[in-house]
Amino acid sequence: MNKNCVFETDMADERVDMYKKINNLTEVDGIKVETNKNNGFITTNVEVLNESGSKAISKEIGKYVTMQIENINYMEEEEKKNIVNELARVITELIGKDTQKSVMVLGLGNINVTPDALGPKVVNDVDITRHLINFAKELVEQDTRPVCAIAPGVLGTTGIETSEIVDSIVKKINVDMIIAIDSLASQSVNRLGNTIQISNTGITPGSGINNKREGINKKALGIPVIAIGVPTVVDMATITNETIDKMIGNVNVEGNFSDASKEERYNVIAKLLNTENYMVTPKDIDNVIDKVSKLIVKAINLSLQEN
Amino acid sequence: MNKNCVFETDMADERVDMYKKINNLTEVDGIKVETNKNNGFITTNVEVLNESGSKAISKEIGKYVTMQIENINYMEEEEKKNIVNELARVITELIGKDTQKSVMVLGLGNINVTPDALGPKVVNDVDITRHLINFAKELVEQDTRPVCAIAPGVLGTTGIETSEIVDSIVKKINVDMIIAIDSLASQSVNRLGNTIQISNTGITPGSGINNKREGINKKALGIPVIAIGVPTVVDMATITNETIDKMIGNVNVEGNFSDASKEERYNVIAKLLNTENYMVTPKDIDNVIDKVSKLIVKAINLSLQEN
Amino acid sequence: MNKNCVFETDMADERVDMYKKINNLTEVDGIKVETNKNNGFITTNVEVLNESGSKAISKEIGKYVTMQIENINYMEEEEKKNIVNELARVITELIGKDTQKSVMVLGLGNINVTPDALGPKVVNDVDITRHLINFAKELVEQDTRPVCAIAPGVLGTTGIETSEIVDSIVKKINVDMIIAIDSLASQSVNRLGNTIQISNTGITPGSGINNKREGINKKALGIPVIAIGVPTVVDMATITNETIDKMIGNVNVEGNFSDASKEERYNVIAKLLNTENYMVTPKDIDNVIDKVSKLIVKAINLSLQEN
Amino acid sequence: MNKNCVFETDMADERVDMYKKINNLTEVDGIKVETNKNNGFITTNVEVLNESGSKAISKEIGKYVTMQIENINYMEEEEKKNIVNELARVITELIGKDTQKSVMVLGLGNINVTPDALGPKVVNDVDITRHLINFAKELVEQDTRPVCAIAPGVLGTTGIETSEIVDSIVKKINVDMIIAIDSLASQSVNRLGNTIQISNTGITPGSGINNKREGINKKALGIPVIAIGVPTVVDMATITNETIDKMIGNVNVEGNFSDASKEERYNVIAKLLNTENYMVTPKDIDNVIDKVSKLIVKAINLSLQEN
Repeated sequence: MNKNCVFETDMADERVDMYKKINNLTEVDGIKVETNKNNGFITTNVEVLNESGSKAISKEIGKYVTMQIENINYMEEEEKKNIVNELARVITELIGKDTQKSVMVLGLGNINVTPDALGPKVVNDVDITRHLINFAKELVEQDTRPVCAIAPGVLGTTGIETSEIVDSIVKKINVDMIIAIDSLASQSVNRLGNTIQISNTGITPGSGINNKREGINKKALGIPVIAIGVPTVVDMATITNETIDKMIGNVNVEGNFSDASKEERYNVIAKLLNTENYMVTPKDIDNVIDKVSKLIVKAINLSLQEN
Repeated sequence: MNKNCVFETDMADERVDMYKKINNLTEVDGIKVETNKNNGFITTNVEVLNESGSKAISKEIGKYVTMQIENINYMEEEEKKNIVNELARVITELIGKDTQKSVMVLGLGNINVTPDALGPKVVNDVDITRHLINFAKELVEQDTRPVCAIAPGVLGTTGIETSEIVDSIVKKINVDMIIAIDSLASQSVNRLGNTIQISNTGITPGSGINNKREGINKKALGIPVIAIGVPTVVDMATITNETIDKMIGNVNVEGNFSDASKEERYNVIAKLLNTENYMVTPKDIDNVIDKVSKLIVKAINLSLQEN
Repeated sequence: MNKNCVFETDMADERVDMYKKINNLTEVDGIKVETNKNNGFITTNVEVLNESGSKAISKEIGKYVTMQIENINYMEEEEKKNIVNELARVITELIGKDTQKSVMVLGLGNINVTPDALGPKVVNDVDITRHLINFAKELVEQDTRPVCAIAPGVLGTTGIETSEIVDSIVKKINVDMIIAIDSLASQSVNRLGNTIQISNTGITPGSGINNKREGINKKALGIPVIAIGVPTVVDMATITNETIDKMIGNVNVEGNFSDASKEERYNVIAKLLNTENYMVTPKDIDNVIDKVSKLIVKAINLSLQEN
Repeated sequence: MNKNCVFETDMADERVDMYKKINNLTEVDGIKVETNKNNGFITTNVEVLNESGSKAISKEIGKYVTMQIENINYMEEEEKKNIVNELARVITELIGKDTQKSVMVLGLGNINVTPDALGPKVVNDVDITRHLINFAKELVEQDTRPVCAIAPGVLGTTGIETSEIVDSIVKKINVDMIIAIDSLASQSVNRLGNTIQISNTGITPGSGINNKREGINKKALGIPVIAIGVPTVVDMATITNETIDKMIGNVNVEGNFSDASKEERYNVIAKLLNTENYMVTPKDIDNVIDKVSKLIVKAINLSLQEN
């Protein structure tokens, strides 16, 4: 029987790797993984096929596409275009081409905390059409898809659970689909700001860097939720634990550290540091968020309307 | 029979003055007005008593308190305290002292347009307790009133009518009362940023500088809505028209200008300039919003919790 | 002898038009004007050739290129590209192609007042290379032009004249040229946000919506200053006066209004309203600034480096 | 002979503690430390008396006062007032009471990265008088001290070293003293956001979370520089190393980890993780910066003008 992992990452592909490593596997039952190298980025498709796969990596059954950009700080125009086009293609595949279906772009996170500002920034910039279709039809082309957008804030500043806000609006205005944008946690600092995960499973309680207790997913809302996330933080205990692991590999340590399982150590660290209140993030996080949000905005605009 | 006015101001006291002037009255039937001079500010209480008063100034039956601050840029600490205390007293009078009743602070307007940013700024700074009462009761004192807050954005950036968002959330989370903060239009540049209007009638379609087609008031939502507004803009046609009026008084003009009624002239001007897309606002509007929002935040915090 | 104008606009082409109108001329001595219609925008080249031209429109001898965009809110990708390319071409023409010459991008204005935020926004987004060339040469290509950027704030928030800050930095770090970005005043609301003026004369005391008493130009600083400006406000007295003018044309007014010269009227209005403390600006100014700043950033990046 | 430390903290009191611990001392030669408990905060005065003390903790000779606030999130009004008054008292002690002496408030850091935004935020809110004294003397009381303020940005966004900007402006406008506000690094997450360090030694190259290669201090600028800093980040390698230390204490590890000196380990970790590009910061850093910046603004305003 395989060992379970406690994952401090929201990235499906990282979870698969961890699960394989801890259980010494080359494949995980119920999970299909495929990696493609493109011009300027690498795509990893993780498909969770059944309950067995879902249980292994604690992720809902569904598709998780990860696009890792080679160098977010120095993309050529051509590379940018490729990334946007591929991102748009993946989004279109998940939401379909029927522009009758209305979409709400949902910007999760806190605009006043730079590493958590991705969602609200995308909402600020994405093309909105719902009000034009309703109140000024002459300004939009026929077959324009109704798109609305909201950044509801976070529990700490509103006092209201995000899922409550979303659920109530969705019911009131008859949204057909949601694209939710969120900042994520990765296990590796090397992926911060340069990796985009798109999934058709929405957002499940407990993931992300925000407190979300109810899901923002089909089960909770009754409509499909596409989640687009970018890792911007690493959990503090994770990185400490990872470091110890690397040091053990490097400096040939003996004693309790190497004997203790990584998970036991994690719990010790988390308790020692009260780590849940802190995050690890790049020093130039403003720059990173700026660049990746522009790619996402362009891809969403491209995928939502006919061309 | 009295002449009707078309009002380009959201301020009840200005409307009363206009109505009196145009109809050559010293009192308006169905409206009670009372003015008090305080240390650092002047309070005007307008009470719309019945349908007759309501029709005269196109304002719902209810109370409208206007506090005009003498000099928002140079308030002494003592004056500030007086203003905050009086503002808190008025709010408490309207919402009552029962801290069992939950309150939602609603920040209307667009945070990215300085003269329209008052509401969202207040929401950012006001004390929120609802989530603590729900999830961390040990952190708050007994009898803390549940307070939540949201800045839903504007139609142009969300594609959703603000009233739809508010209505759906209110129904979902059982709010007992709303305090809505908004930027208003005045008829006079001299009142911009230094006047606070508090009313118990909520927000009615068509007023304010935003497009709000459904009301945010008791009739629409089923719960009391206290509105706190500060004039930050003057309508462009209004000010032009006003100017002409003043010039007529000053320079002894004859001819068509003085013959045309002020309202006819307004329509001519509005058509000539396409004025509805523009606003007149102080050059140091950031400073003004900053100062007045701090007074409002302090007063709300003071009035919502027991002391 | 020709009559002088008092101009409440920073736009050279508007001044030429006013001067012609008031003096009933078809040409102004010492000024060459040329207009071209392009795909999506109209270009007006005003060249002030000599003192006579300079005196007529109160603008320094030099070139003023105005690009008026047809519809800033609905530009096709192709149109955007054309505008950026033409803007870049004009900038390159003024600064030259020698990438040895270092450039400072200077963002004038107050980032906290939306209609005045253009300069600081451009500074935030423009590509900076000076520090890389100095400290990390391996990260930049050979012949990269040293570019630095600063948004020094405004007198009201720093207490220091912008020209003092700029002059001191320029002398300290040996800048060869400045590109100064500023919000301007136009005489017409129809040009707000959709017009870009590029000149090789820098910024002269008294123009712009900020208080700038010393020039930011070659005479004051000893180095060439290219100014890129976008009108975002109209002077309140101007617009009122303009309206009266239009009404006179429309409604056939007689009496003092039509007799008084427009300039006399302007002074009356300015005194009556204390207009210098207020501005007229579009309600969706955030949107407008966002769109036009992106065009300018792209054009500056394109023109400053070899391609 | 005592061992040297490599300090990853900007806090003088932490350095003294580290130095004592590593060298097993109860006192450090050339350093005087004094701690006082007040209502709501604890003050630690570190005085570096001579070269010996300076060398031990790698801090300039001078005074370092640290105020540690008990609970920044729940200060009573009385506590707030105490903290502000004490902070103002310390500042006044360092800058003197002569209001003829002009002061420049210098906001270091990047306003777009929340944990680095303290300096620019304080600059936004502090009372400025220099321009009034120069241009509108009638608006200020006699003996008002000339105060100006600037937030020059960071090397990564300006391409100019902050010290170059400051040096050039100081020389141009004859500033007598500087109060520099900066975000600092602490060694302990428990101090983030709740500790204020005031010193009379300015800012020395290499400290702080920004890249500052030239000092902003009396030696470099020729005028006194008071530095006010708040720790908002912890170095990633520091915290990892600290954790290992705590684990060694807790879980009784043997082997290479405990044998290696803490400093050797630090270098291994820093290399393994490329830690210099990342920072550890509280998840609610916006809130923390907001609260502590308000205290600092009030204290500066209070200390700079006569009362």
